[in-house]
Amino acid sequence: MTTTVSTLTNGVRVVTHAMPHVETSSLGVWIGVGARHETETQQGISHLLEHMAFKGTKTRSALQIAEEIEQVGGEINAATSLESTAYYARVLKGDEGLALEILADILQDSTFDQGELEKERDVILQEIAATQDSPDEIAYDLIQEAAFPGQAVGRPILGTPASVTATSPEDLRRFLGTHYAPARLVVSAAGAVTHDSVLRHAEALFGGLSTSQETSHGDEPARYVGGARSSVKSFEQSHVLMGFEGPSYRAPDAFTAQVFSGLFGGGMSSRLFQEVREKRGLCYAIYSSAWGLKDSGMFQIHAATSHAMVPELIDVIGQELTVMADRGPTEREVTRAKAQLKAGLLMSLESSGARAEQMARHLLVHGRLIAPDELVARVDEVTVERVRTFAQRLAGSPACVAIVGAGKKSSVHAKHAQRALEKKDEGVVAPA
Amino acid sequence: MTTTVSTLTNGVRVVTHAMPHVETSSLGVWIGVGARHETETQQGISHLLEHMAFKGTKTRSALQIAEEIEQVGGEINAATSLESTAYYARVLKGDEGLALEILADILQDSTFDQGELEKERDVILQEIAATQDSPDEIAYDLIQEAAFPGQAVGRPILGTPASVTATSPEDLRRFLGTHYAPARLVVSAAGAVTHDSVLRHAEALFGGLSTSQETSHGDEPARYVGGARSSVKSFEQSHVLMGFEGPSYRAPDAFTAQVFSGLFGGGMSSRLFQEVREKRGLCYAIYSSAWGLKDSGMFQIHAATSHAMVPELIDVIGQELTVMADRGPTEREVTRAKAQLKAGLLMSLESSGARAEQMARHLLVHGRLIAPDELVARVDEVTVERVRTFAQRLAGSPACVAIVGAGKKSSVHAKHAQRALEKKDEGVVAPA
Repeated sequence: MTTTVSTLTNGVRVVTHAMPHVETSSLGVWIGVGARHETETQQGISHLLEHMAFKGTKTRSALQIAEEIEQVGGEINAATSLESTAYYARVLKGDEGLALEILADILQDSTFDQGELEKERDVILQEIAATQDSPDEIAYDLIQEAAFPGQAVGRPILGTPASVTATSPEDLRRFLGTHYAPARLVVSAAGAVTHDSVLRHAEALFGGLSTSQETSHGDEPARYVGGARSSVKSFEQSHVLMGFEGPSYRAPDAFTAQVFSGLFGGGMSSRLFQEVREKRGLCYAIYSSAWGLKDSGMFQIHAATSHAMVPELIDVIGQELTVMADRGPTEREVTRAKAQLKAGLLMSLESSGARAEQMARHLLVHGRLIAPDELVARVDEVTVERVRTFAQRLAGSPACVAIVGAGKKSSVHAKHAQRALEKKDEGVVAPA
Repeated sequence: MTTTVSTLTNGVRVVTHAMPHVETSSLGVWIGVGARHETETQQGISHLLEHMAFKGTKTRSALQIAEEIEQVGGEINAATSLESTAYYARVLKGDEGLALEILADILQDSTFDQGELEKERDVILQEIAATQDSPDEIAYDLIQEAAFPGQAVGRPILGTPASVTATSPEDLRRFLGTHYAPARLVVSAAGAVTHDSVLRHAEALFGGLSTSQETSHGDEPARYVGGARSSVKSFEQSHVLMGFEGPSYRAPDAFTAQVFSGLFGGGMSSRLFQEVREKRGLCYAIYSSAWGLKDSGMFQIHAATSHAMVPELIDVIGQELTVMADRGPTEREVTRAKAQLKAGLLMSLESSGARAEQMARHLLVHGRLIAPDELVARVDEVTVERVRTFAQRLAGSPACVAIVGAGKKSSVHAKHAQRALEKKDEGVVAPA
């Protein structure tokens, strides 16, 4: 198994990982542009552009795009996130050229027809409506806004019905022309591929992409603020999201955050799972997670419980964080969380899709590939003391919180949760 | 890569698929017992038993179970369905013995402590509450009940709050003793394993499982009825589920159903995706699926849209089915759907987890392994005419329908949907 990177003369990077024992491949184009590159009036345009890429090019209708990939048994899809957008496919051995040709076509020659745009807006309005039926999605949008208020990184990736409706074909063309510069494009493929074949196709298909509009259109730095948010909507359960600013993926303590998240709320043996689910039966699921942006990040805890149990849930989470900040984890907990992180990495890399995505992200985020061995070494550097220091820093910093489901009481719970995390009401009786 | 099956003297089957190029393995114990083996008062007991398997054995506490697997970077989990229950793990090379030992322990020596049971009930009550916040999960439960009213295969796998609360440790022991017979157990492993090692561990761990209570405790045959169901709950979107009885996985037309489902609502080039999403912008997602039981099955269509668009959505789906029954699919559509099915099969088998699960299901369902080549040959046998005949049979048979989200209007829509599928109101104006 070999991994190879090439750079085209216009700056497009091409990376492949050959897995000679498999019969299929995963490949795609990852672009270092996403919702954080949008102005307030543009919100949702990265995602809308990603949708419109499938609605027809100069030489293919929407139906032809779908038929061409599906008639060889392939799948094609796309996804938009805060800092990147991915267009990817999975195909049988020998079909990587076809898949790349379709991806190049929809990325460079989409027509953005006005009639198609109007229908696709309706599709996205349905996608937005679906999020409003999901208490956890409402909560995730709220905590993001609490963490980064008034900023692109704090706004929903889907945009709003108003912003999506206001976007014109010309807006899409301008956003594409401004942001989809060759230096921000990575073509990544893993599985039944050779570097020579992918590189040859990529040169022919993306080599002509102009560098004239080389982007200076950046994005504002993320400024974490924190605060409490809630929704007045009522659901059967209350969803509790609590968190803090976490490290950027470029920060020295990025892996410390991952280890902490693992032992605090990452698995069945984690502190939160044991205390909240196993000892108290409060939740079906409780998870913590740590994710980074280029200049900030978030550490989050998510759980859902019955309305009456929300105060207890909040207090337990607050107490467990306090214990962790005061006493730190045990050596065994750190060893176990590190073993889980390292094994999870090996497991994911056996999937061609996960491998292709990881290579693309490394090039976009770090400007170079990071070999599994180096990732393992970074995990191994994490110590009990580093985890404790990390927990202490969280416990002393501004929290962000979102509560959804308990109707008008959600706002009371949200304030309580913020105080519990910021250690301002230890010993105070929780609101009923 | 080799696949090998052995049978222990007590009837437990052991199957492995060695993938020498990978560093991890997926393995587990699949049992041919699930919610359809429950009486009405027992409903939810298969799932509760699966939960309680993780709550402590004669030699391990719940925390020790979690710690032992996670300290080697492994993961352990379980899932209950209508006809089977699976307990499975993913581990690094060399840890398959440990994983099998833990799985054997929780399956054979769980203590079902009363105090632990009471806490786990609360966890499952939260799991049930979460389904009530999910309009699609409500709809799936309703359509199942419409299809198979008053039967175990028509009841929710989670059970009800009352049935879960009424279950005692003795009930769990009796259900386990009655149903978890050796002949119903399959140990399956794929990835970085050898058959010799897995077989040796399985013999030591499961070879002593008694055959004395060899099960004659079967389950009643599934009797498909059909009908319309709805919920008065209001959500932002309405969820529309429509369907018919489909073939058993043992039936000759099981693969015809898969091909029909693929070209009708399976991918971006399918009839429903093109007509409902691409031409009309009614939905973000629309899918059809076909799944089998040993003696029945379901063909289903699922979509969500705004309340005002429900009548149009229902009529379009009904019309597309009529067109398919009248004219059949094109040769190109059948070829494409077959290519997608075959490629999807190859893609999934590159995952050790999917491979282990598929082998276990084949042994439980068909009593033998079916090689990928044979599956491909079965897909290749499907013709345009067979698909048209299949669509015709659906269009002339009793429908099942569930509508959730539009409050009191949902019941009106449900009746309309049933008539639209059973072709009883062609040309009639849909209710507003």
